[in-house]
Amino acid sequence: MTRQELIAQIKQKKSFLCVGLDTDPKKMPQCVFDLHDPVFEFNKAIIDATAPYCVAYKPNLAFYEAYGLKGMESFVKTIDYLKDHHPHHLIIADAKRGDIGNTSQLYARTFFEEYDVDALTVAPYMGEDSVTPFLQYPGKWVILLALTSNKGSQDFQFLRGAGVQERGSAGVQECRLFEQVILKSQQWGTEENMMYVVGATQGRLFEDVRKIAPRHFLLVPGVGAQGGSLEEVCKYGMNKDCGLLVNSSRGIIYASQDDHFAEIAGNKARELQQQMEKVLANI
Amino acid sequence: MTRQELIAQIKQKKSFLCVGLDTDPKKMPQCVFDLHDPVFEFNKAIIDATAPYCVAYKPNLAFYEAYGLKGMESFVKTIDYLKDHHPHHLIIADAKRGDIGNTSQLYARTFFEEYDVDALTVAPYMGEDSVTPFLQYPGKWVILLALTSNKGSQDFQFLRGAGVQERGSAGVQECRLFEQVILKSQQWGTEENMMYVVGATQGRLFEDVRKIAPRHFLLVPGVGAQGGSLEEVCKYGMNKDCGLLVNSSRGIIYASQDDHFAEIAGNKARELQQQMEKVLANI
Repeated sequence: MTRQELIAQIKQKKSFLCVGLDTDPKKMPQCVFDLHDPVFEFNKAIIDATAPYCVAYKPNLAFYEAYGLKGMESFVKTIDYLKDHHPHHLIIADAKRGDIGNTSQLYARTFFEEYDVDALTVAPYMGEDSVTPFLQYPGKWVILLALTSNKGSQDFQFLRGAGVQERGSAGVQECRLFEQVILKSQQWGTEENMMYVVGATQGRLFEDVRKIAPRHFLLVPGVGAQGGSLEEVCKYGMNKDCGLLVNSSRGIIYASQDDHFAEIAGNKARELQQQMEKVLANI
Repeated sequence: MTRQELIAQIKQKKSFLCVGLDTDPKKMPQCVFDLHDPVFEFNKAIIDATAPYCVAYKPNLAFYEAYGLKGMESFVKTIDYLKDHHPHHLIIADAKRGDIGNTSQLYARTFFEEYDVDALTVAPYMGEDSVTPFLQYPGKWVILLALTSNKGSQDFQFLRGAGVQERGSAGVQECRLFEQVILKSQQWGTEENMMYVVGATQGRLFEDVRKIAPRHFLLVPGVGAQGGSLEEVCKYGMNKDCGLLVNSSRGIIYASQDDHFAEIAGNKARELQQQMEKVLANI
């Protein structure tokens, strides 16, 4: 999916919601366990109920790998279902991969050819040759971890040191690691094939991110269960193309554990979509 | 496996070799393709031929995930084979995982319960709550990326900034990101459950690592195909307990593509073991 197609979807749906498919059998309603592949059936129901209100789905691989081969089978079926029935939704595999060049090439092939998802989250620690293999696929996206939503983001991401040259600038500036990641990676990819993860819990720091990445899309986890505010994210993070994909997982998919779980998840997604519609009207 | 057990294995085998099972069907000899699960059969032959000369095996998940469910099945069979037939070898899953706390918990369960490997490589970018869930399993190890072997290690790992307090020290010191990772993570785990990845290509920087992590084991990739020197690694990185696991993948497992590939891989492993035996005699 290209940047223009994504923007068109956001305008059409009046939503920049991403639904996180962090599907955990321990939290699923009893009724799906009678079916052959409960994880897949749960996802399918959630997807059909929320599709009108969101532009992206983000299964986190940890939840599928945790159930071994069976879990990965549910993952593959979920991706295939999305591609067959909701082909205009961006599919983000949240896997946070990244390894030396020849190994990242393999991960890229796995996610962009074998599973054929649209986007993959990538960890930046190992630098350029761990990231660029993912940028060789037209229409596919790297979503690089920059400033994450968790408490541990404080540990290394704020390390302040002599930074790299900003694109088009002559000087070297002092900056924090997350800024270094954003600046440096702009030498590898563009706003057409790269986004950044910036946690909703980071509040006004979205202003600092926008200073150095004004046009990039940001994938924003941490609204809901993790305590981030949609209002604040939009205030400091939105750009003229919207530029945001705000993810909600637990707040939507586990909103109810009774037989009507999908309908209630749909309602939760619609609530967020309606808040987003108001914000988008003011761009 | 405990630290003492690992040290005992190193002394007994006179080796600190780790064989990397980066098994790529494109590089396997023709003869294994007649068998039911060629990747597993290749691994099995390599393992049986090299087991006397090494103390650890390190399958990199990227190589197995690249072949989807079938690949993961070969991975599981390889782990099970190692556990059944070579129970005294440390099994390292090279997966470079790391996510927010509740998600890292799931990855930890996957690797330490479902697959039951001894150690997992973990990426440090997301900080404390992304790493500590892996440290809750007695006898299991976190191997944290510190200073990697690839060219991209230059991009962020050397960012120099105000560091954290060193254990037992009162002051704050200026240090590089890889040093920050090593220092900070010593507040989360100990030399009994944590190792660091330090690439063989980093040469004299092993001295700097040893200043702040004198007792920890270091997992050292990058000897062989990537150009690192075993001699240099030992000179600057070894401690009185050895403290090194030196990995070789391509140099051993793809040493030959003919019918005698396993025997030749065994010879290559023995060559490295013999070099290691000489070094160990001088500790």
